[in-house]
Amino acid sequence: MTLTRTQVGIVGGGPAGLMLAHLLHVAGIESVVVETRSRREIEQTHRAGILERDSVRLLVESGASDRVLRDGHEHTGIDLRFGGVSHRIDFQTLVGASTWLYPQTEVFVDLADARSRDGGDVRFEVSGVSVLDVTTDRPGIRYTDAEGGEHEVRCDVVVGADGSRSTTRALVADRRQYFREYPFAWFGILCEAPPSASELVYARSEHGFALVSQRTESVQRMYFQCDPTTSADDWSEDRIWAQLQADLDGEDGFELRTGRILEKTVLPFRSFVCEPMRHGNLLLAGDAAHTVPPTGAKGLNLALADVRVLAEVLERAISRQDRTALEEYTPRALSRVWRAQHFSYWMTTMLHRSAEASDFDERRQLGELESVVGSESGSRYLAEAYTGWPEPTQSTTISATRSTAAEASSAREASASSTVSGTASGT
Amino acid sequence: MTLTRTQVGIVGGGPAGLMLAHLLHVAGIESVVVETRSRREIEQTHRAGILERDSVRLLVESGASDRVLRDGHEHTGIDLRFGGVSHRIDFQTLVGASTWLYPQTEVFVDLADARSRDGGDVRFEVSGVSVLDVTTDRPGIRYTDAEGGEHEVRCDVVVGADGSRSTTRALVADRRQYFREYPFAWFGILCEAPPSASELVYARSEHGFALVSQRTESVQRMYFQCDPTTSADDWSEDRIWAQLQADLDGEDGFELRTGRILEKTVLPFRSFVCEPMRHGNLLLAGDAAHTVPPTGAKGLNLALADVRVLAEVLERAISRQDRTALEEYTPRALSRVWRAQHFSYWMTTMLHRSAEASDFDERRQLGELESVVGSESGSRYLAEAYTGWPEPTQSTTISATRSTAAEASSAREASASSTVSGTASGT
Repeated sequence: MTLTRTQVGIVGGGPAGLMLAHLLHVAGIESVVVETRSRREIEQTHRAGILERDSVRLLVESGASDRVLRDGHEHTGIDLRFGGVSHRIDFQTLVGASTWLYPQTEVFVDLADARSRDGGDVRFEVSGVSVLDVTTDRPGIRYTDAEGGEHEVRCDVVVGADGSRSTTRALVADRRQYFREYPFAWFGILCEAPPSASELVYARSEHGFALVSQRTESVQRMYFQCDPTTSADDWSEDRIWAQLQADLDGEDGFELRTGRILEKTVLPFRSFVCEPMRHGNLLLAGDAAHTVPPTGAKGLNLALADVRVLAEVLERAISRQDRTALEEYTPRALSRVWRAQHFSYWMTTMLHRSAEASDFDERRQLGELESVVGSESGSRYLAEAYTGWPEPTQSTTISATRSTAAEASSAREASASSTVSGTASGT
Repeated sequence: MTLTRTQVGIVGGGPAGLMLAHLLHVAGIESVVVETRSRREIEQTHRAGILERDSVRLLVESGASDRVLRDGHEHTGIDLRFGGVSHRIDFQTLVGASTWLYPQTEVFVDLADARSRDGGDVRFEVSGVSVLDVTTDRPGIRYTDAEGGEHEVRCDVVVGADGSRSTTRALVADRRQYFREYPFAWFGILCEAPPSASELVYARSEHGFALVSQRTESVQRMYFQCDPTTSADDWSEDRIWAQLQADLDGEDGFELRTGRILEKTVLPFRSFVCEPMRHGNLLLAGDAAHTVPPTGAKGLNLALADVRVLAEVLERAISRQDRTALEEYTPRALSRVWRAQHFSYWMTTMLHRSAEASDFDERRQLGELESVVGSESGSRYLAEAYTGWPEPTQSTTISATRSTAAEASSAREASASSTVSGTASGT
């Protein structure tokens, strides 16, 4: 048994765990991250692709990486498409913010690289992870490494950032779990084709929901609503394109660009919240504590928002010995989580076609879409949520983080942060 | 059989039918209104109490009556109450508009008085109403008067403004009907008490929905959510006050002022739309074509909005011989109807507690309420809908109507309209 002593033990090396480790490093706090998957496996899992304004800021201003500004694509709005016509929701005009198309796998690569660059301790391909003594001052993590060696990490605080199939969550003894199932899933494809649109198109037709997204100039990502029991194998290329064509059909000359399909997946669709997000010296972050349906792209962004609050709280608890700071975490994180749960539910119910929906419900849904696109306030309300509500105490958090980060990598960070702020404070 | 010849035959002498007859009179078009109830019966039926900005304008600027500005109460906002705290939605600050507390029975009295004053032909207490030949150029209405006399009215156009139990609706041969039932109703009381609040309070607690409204300094109107099968007789005064107290309880010193209960009623709760709203020379208006649940106070306002469009369309069809004008009615009216249906559904689902709701749904509902009151855009989106979306072509309609009305009653109308406009364009 090898024993390691650190300040924060983090279970889970996805974007949430690695971003937290990075922010703690910037704040001068040591951590050890353990992750069951290999780095290669995580890099090859296609996930969400849209970053909120403050997720981009966090990556760039913390000094993790500014690659998103070079390789990502700034999206200044989305289209809501219904009745065969696209309606622009222009984020820049409405709220002076943008989102960035930058796949989650790239965020992971940037954060994993930053940990390597800064000498971070990230242990991939571990197994048999267990978390110990979370209600004591010296909680720990035990695991087995790839070669069969036994390890124990002892720390001040353990963070469970181990995703939607979290095992650490079970240690929150007095937790309440909130669920909602939906009668649909998303069928996602990667295809070899030129972009059909320059930014995201959220479409609602009598056939259901579809989403046109992008990856590169020659590879596109698209989704359409399907039955949760659908098997990807039952869908031929022809059937997939026929479905998307029907979903996106219209009078305004929108042209779906098709091509060879590289990958097919059925995405699960569920709302979940675990409350509280802390038990003693164990704190949960990201999918370990909550899952949103994919409509509205909140999943990764919500995980990064958790981590932003968590880094601040841990800095006060550990560096400044203010243990009461930990008590703030659950209420501050959950306030955003429930707004995001509502937003994801709203976007989902406004755009999907439910088999149980009456004719009245369908017409009302169109009445709602007309209300939203026909009202500047309605459009702005949606744009605010989509681009990400500012964290109430965020300015403090970010500037505190920034000044420390600046010492480590001042040149990169200065140029990058001015780019993001410039865009965010535009029109 | 007594035969009358007129231009527009109107079935239904509630606010919609009488307002239409008044607007047609102002435009120089003759009408006959038939109504099964007595004037006294209508005056004694308590109904909705909130007028949108443009409903007030229509009453005042058309020269019907400016009594609303003297006897009504301008409300510059509402409170949304949840988590035991009231959150102000300030209409004046958000959209520069107000609503007016002015019961539907007063609107009816004003309109009935205006018809008498202007020599209008309104026939109360008729029976056996039937509508004839609506697909011909000479449709008609047959009925029996209170003394048993048989009558026939022949006209160019028949309007069905005969309320939610409309019989004229059945003549729209190719109609589609859209329904939605809700698992609740409202329990309404009139009570002898001082006001608990100066303006409306929409409350959502773990016990369900409640609404605090007003009538006079000494008589109040309140509502709480109940089971649709509830009998008003099963509720004692004590039980009613205990329910309202639980619904409105909180930490912020809100005090429910109680008193003797003068009237108890269970209000039905349903969404309904009939489409199209025209068949040949029969046109439907108000509750005959659509019903909304009471949350958000859209019912009477939607009827008056129909009538505003209908008066304009009939003026073009009859006075200017432009029969194609009638074709505009359904799409123009329905565009507003479906937005209002959505708004009423939204206010209902955001504020009521459903027995089928999961714990997740309840927390998400609070997440939604927090999102709306925490966002100026969200609050404005609600305020826009609550105070009434401007009719796209309204400025034309109103100014055309106003110049004719001014000839009839210029002094009253000039002073009144400046009052309303002044308020409406305020901060």
